[in-house]
Amino acid sequence: MDVTENAFLMNCWYVAAWDHELHDGKILARTLLNKPVVLFRGESGNYVALDDRCCHRAAPLSMGRLEGDCIRCMYHGLKFDDSGTCVEIPGQDRIPPTFTVYSYPIEERNHLIWIWMGNPALADTDLILDYPPLGDPNWRGLPGYLHYAANYLLIVDNLSDIGHLAFVHTNTLGGSEEYAYVSKPNLVEREPWGFRLERWHRDADAPPYHQKVISDRTAKVDRRNATEVHAPGIFLMETMFSPAGSGDESLEGGARQYRNSQYMTPETASSTHFFWNYMHNFDLDNPNIAVSLRDSLIEAFHEDKALIEAQQTKLENDPSFRLRVLGADEGLTHVRQILQKRIDAERAAINDESVGSRSAG
Amino acid sequence: MDVTENAFLMNCWYVAAWDHELHDGKILARTLLNKPVVLFRGESGNYVALDDRCCHRAAPLSMGRLEGDCIRCMYHGLKFDDSGTCVEIPGQDRIPPTFTVYSYPIEERNHLIWIWMGNPALADTDLILDYPPLGDPNWRGLPGYLHYAANYLLIVDNLSDIGHLAFVHTNTLGGSEEYAYVSKPNLVEREPWGFRLERWHRDADAPPYHQKVISDRTAKVDRRNATEVHAPGIFLMETMFSPAGSGDESLEGGARQYRNSQYMTPETASSTHFFWNYMHNFDLDNPNIAVSLRDSLIEAFHEDKALIEAQQTKLENDPSFRLRVLGADEGLTHVRQILQKRIDAERAAINDESVGSRSAG
Amino acid sequence: MDVTENAFLMNCWYVAAWDHELHDGKILARTLLNKPVVLFRGESGNYVALDDRCCHRAAPLSMGRLEGDCIRCMYHGLKFDDSGTCVEIPGQDRIPPTFTVYSYPIEERNHLIWIWMGNPALADTDLILDYPPLGDPNWRGLPGYLHYAANYLLIVDNLSDIGHLAFVHTNTLGGSEEYAYVSKPNLVEREPWGFRLERWHRDADAPPYHQKVISDRTAKVDRRNATEVHAPGIFLMETMFSPAGSGDESLEGGARQYRNSQYMTPETASSTHFFWNYMHNFDLDNPNIAVSLRDSLIEAFHEDKALIEAQQTKLENDPSFRLRVLGADEGLTHVRQILQKRIDAERAAINDESVGSRSAG
Repeated sequence: MDVTENAFLMNCWYVAAWDHELHDGKILARTLLNKPVVLFRGESGNYVALDDRCCHRAAPLSMGRLEGDCIRCMYHGLKFDDSGTCVEIPGQDRIPPTFTVYSYPIEERNHLIWIWMGNPALADTDLILDYPPLGDPNWRGLPGYLHYAANYLLIVDNLSDIGHLAFVHTNTLGGSEEYAYVSKPNLVEREPWGFRLERWHRDADAPPYHQKVISDRTAKVDRRNATEVHAPGIFLMETMFSPAGSGDESLEGGARQYRNSQYMTPETASSTHFFWNYMHNFDLDNPNIAVSLRDSLIEAFHEDKALIEAQQTKLENDPSFRLRVLGADEGLTHVRQILQKRIDAERAAINDESVGSRSAG
Repeated sequence: MDVTENAFLMNCWYVAAWDHELHDGKILARTLLNKPVVLFRGESGNYVALDDRCCHRAAPLSMGRLEGDCIRCMYHGLKFDDSGTCVEIPGQDRIPPTFTVYSYPIEERNHLIWIWMGNPALADTDLILDYPPLGDPNWRGLPGYLHYAANYLLIVDNLSDIGHLAFVHTNTLGGSEEYAYVSKPNLVEREPWGFRLERWHRDADAPPYHQKVISDRTAKVDRRNATEVHAPGIFLMETMFSPAGSGDESLEGGARQYRNSQYMTPETASSTHFFWNYMHNFDLDNPNIAVSLRDSLIEAFHEDKALIEAQQTKLENDPSFRLRVLGADEGLTHVRQILQKRIDAERAAINDESVGSRSAG
Repeated sequence: MDVTENAFLMNCWYVAAWDHELHDGKILARTLLNKPVVLFRGESGNYVALDDRCCHRAAPLSMGRLEGDCIRCMYHGLKFDDSGTCVEIPGQDRIPPTFTVYSYPIEERNHLIWIWMGNPALADTDLILDYPPLGDPNWRGLPGYLHYAANYLLIVDNLSDIGHLAFVHTNTLGGSEEYAYVSKPNLVEREPWGFRLERWHRDADAPPYHQKVISDRTAKVDRRNATEVHAPGIFLMETMFSPAGSGDESLEGGARQYRNSQYMTPETASSTHFFWNYMHNFDLDNPNIAVSLRDSLIEAFHEDKALIEAQQTKLENDPSFRLRVLGADEGLTHVRQILQKRIDAERAAINDESVGSRSAG
């Protein structure tokens, strides 16, 4: 699968926004999978996602005005309800039935706003991969957003081999280059939806981002990272630091835990919306912990971003370049394979029957 | 007619500049209908428009030097007269007859510099749509220029339905959203060259731009807008404000008049030169009136510009998007239709006979 | 040969850098003939030029770390030696033999770093056009670099007719427009590799750049420029100023000499790396001379750059534009012809036998 190719899995839920991006009547314009979308929360509390082009002359509805659960285009005043139906045309009594804008299925789960860009008949909300810690008061964190000038799969690749912590994030998330050489070999379990990976790194200094939020910064720790990568672009991770030698199974006696979820939603073939929250479950009364973690993660993501955007440039400049595979790429290779199969199947289904396929925009 | 398409009507006069842009020996480089043009006024007073590329190595003549009615390329010193003929090559006695640059028909009328980009054999100056108020001392105004990153037809569309005053220009030219709902339905008269439109809005507050230049700002007014749209891109408007209820035909008793002309000249398929002058015929000794009107118009045009450039982006990003038509679009639809016919006819004529068609640059 | 065309002569040495750009462990990323290259000097003193993309995931090696004569990719830690062979993969014992990056032939000569982008079997270092004054203590100068947003041939054209000094560089290198009209006609000798040109300009004021570094600024001088242009993009020039009337052959009695070499290396079809050194052989103990000359040349090259980049834009915007030829273009026409023949021959050879042709990247 070429990252310069413009092919997305359509029939799945993608994260479109954090809920706080739509608070207080905010109107958010965001391109998702190459489609311009306007997102807002109506007065009734419903989330709404419409094609961000007035059906009349393509003016952006996101430059319009919220009115109850409706949005009014501020060019010629056409008003659309949350289903995308035009309900008013100033100066004209008759509203032609073709005056509609596409309305995307949209659903909130634990502060994330999910959108379905594919065939709406298949938009089953049970397919949303909810991440309970995001809504659990025992876990605290600050939601983050970054924009990447790179195809989303390059970020998925990045997260699929956390061995890159050793070199990219030595001074932030990693702590030492040793992590790449001596940490316990990954346990990778392939799944139909992606893969699980577990990685232990024992008897080492705590990495800088963790040192900043604990009191005893010099004690050696055992570190466990347990990750899941779900195609097309979701990364979930449990991280544990326990006193060195305290045993694999023991989460008692001073272990520190983190829960982390990251979401890569294609904006275009060459740019990505990146959402994340890195949460902790200790010292919950100290708000500085979440702030420190957020800042550490932003610092680290910028280390990734520089490399990933450089990769994107290299690949765009020479589409003939072929990426090569290492042993550590077992997971990412599997993700790309199952993703390609799903995309192929989706396309075959669309070719078989045009019935039920959406025709937005 | 797709605004992403690069098709212009060639055989007609377009505004290339205001005369003040060529005062005092200024050399103006301006792309018109995708062609680079250098414009200047020779010592004799003649206006000159040449292909802005030296025929030798394509260096811009606009980086050159005015010498009498000639311009000298400041790369290797070739000198061209106002017909585009090379009259000197430093260091070489013989001037090859092929050493010419294309010279465009150009004509001044009431401070506007008109250019003919098509077949020069057809460049009849009687075809110039002169607007006498621009040269009439009873009308005062300040000539303006704006650059739009949008196809010129999106601006023509904008001006063809002045109902947009209600929403886009509520706080500048419009005055209220009521304008879109209750003003007297348009009278649209289709013409072979475009259309005329008349629109009354009665017993309303004066709009902000008008309030700023009159003394009694609270009195209700009747407003008449009478516009003409000429294909491909000229907009003329008479505006009158009379005391509310003073009668349709009465321009006496305190009526205030404006005359306004606007010219949309394609720079490229996705950008436009926009010239205008919004004139008044009252308080002529007060220069602040013209300044206030110019500033109000600039403010309002930037309201349009934000929307129109956003439309352009939407249409470029998805050429499959089809604009839809409302009742109020009767005029603009007519303009696009007659324009398409003229473009088609022009192309058919070029295909029929290559004789007489220009072969510039 | 169209400057918008992306065709380069491959089998020849190009200047990639000045040696000082690689001092002190600097890692230089530079695109050459559309290829991303990383350049560095290993601990042993060897110069190294590798494909600037890790063979694993295309991360730039130029964002990596120098280790001896090796470079380590700082994404996943792969280490490559100066032949481009991967010698370490952290966390993996076996190194697949396909894990290599292309290593370009590279050679230093008198402070210039030369690279061979074509078939490495043909990379004979005897083909390097060494310029001895660059390494001669009797000639002093400061090496310079400029980036041009233009095809390299437009710069070669510029240098091929030094008549442009009269108009472009009147106030820097030229001194008067007279230079274009009255200087002795060029003597042009065509060679298989390019051409030689000699041009005398007698009994004239010294040009500004020369006046700045001599004491008697008002004396009339005879000026001799003797240039060589070597395809594809090397310019060498001897310049002499002698007291007016002192005779063509006399370099005695107050003559001042300069030696100048300039190198145009394509970055892409529309951008160029430009290297130069303008050297003098008088007042060698005064370092201000070299500084003054360097500054004068930078000023003059920016005069060229404005014109040349404008040409590039004109030609890109209208690929149908055809450059025309003057008498003074005899040299540049010859260079373009022999260059085209060499490029054609190279392509024919590649088509005849794929054996020996490189397959980098």
